[in-house]
Amino acid sequence: MKDFPGTPGTVTGLILRVLQCVFAAASIASMASTSYFFKFTAFCYLIASLGLQITWSFVLALIDAYALVRNKALQSTVLVSLFIVGDWITATLTLAAASSSSGVAILYFNDLKSCSFIGDCQKYQLSVALAFLSWITIAISSLIMVWLLASS
Amino acid sequence: MKDFPGTPGTVTGLILRVLQCVFAAASIASMASTSYFFKFTAFCYLIASLGLQITWSFVLALIDAYALVRNKALQSTVLVSLFIVGDWITATLTLAAASSSSGVAILYFNDLKSCSFIGDCQKYQLSVALAFLSWITIAISSLIMVWLLASS
Repeated sequence: MKDFPGTPGTVTGLILRVLQCVFAAASIASMASTSYFFKFTAFCYLIASLGLQITWSFVLALIDAYALVRNKALQSTVLVSLFIVGDWITATLTLAAASSSSGVAILYFNDLKSCSFIGDCQKYQLSVALAFLSWITIAISSLIMVWLLASS
Repeated sequence: MKDFPGTPGTVTGLILRVLQCVFAAASIASMASTSYFFKFTAFCYLIASLGLQITWSFVLALIDAYALVRNKALQSTVLVSLFIVGDWITATLTLAAASSSSGVAILYFNDLKSCSFIGDCQKYQLSVALAFLSWITIAISSLIMVWLLASS
């Protein structure tokens, strides 16, 4: 297997994993700091889905950091296939959660033109934007993994 | 390249493409038959996204049918790579559209417990369910395409 930026055990790969955790954690923090998020199924699903995303990305970040410190190769076909399956499942769940929350956020901001939860509405928007950023970083990781497996 | 069920130019591949078109068209029909769908950004996006899905799947269905009738092979690496890119883009857009619409539909049905658009609410639900079915069939096609390219 080739060793290009973003593959497991590289600095770029580690940065991508850390970014996934940071964006997902910031999104959850922004959503959880609102008063009425638990009244919306979509927002609860966003928190649950991003919680799974953080767990997955954190474990992968630890593995990447271990491989970097010990200078070990992480590019066996079985390991990369496992990473791909996990990446695609979490990426799909994160995209679905971000989209469903954005549907609700856009409904209140754009369609109904009245968001009665004063102060909270900006937090909903911020949370959705951060969830999409988290999805973009996990999508980049997933594509790099598929490319790595395809080029092996 | 191997020739297994679901690959381009096979009967299963053609059935999958036709199912994608049928589910997407039924979803659009169910949504467009409601009176107030244009007031919801998420529902308009669903129609636009599934419109793109139908166009893409219909073209691929025609190509599959042509290959079946003329008994031609469609499995060059360049062609399959092109199919994969198109499949993944439309699958991502369809999932995002189905999720954002489901966020709004669940908000009205479950969270607010009041859907004031009498008769239309069941159509919203039906449309979202059909959009998810369309996404499942395009996801199956996409995975088969990636598997085909990986095994070549």
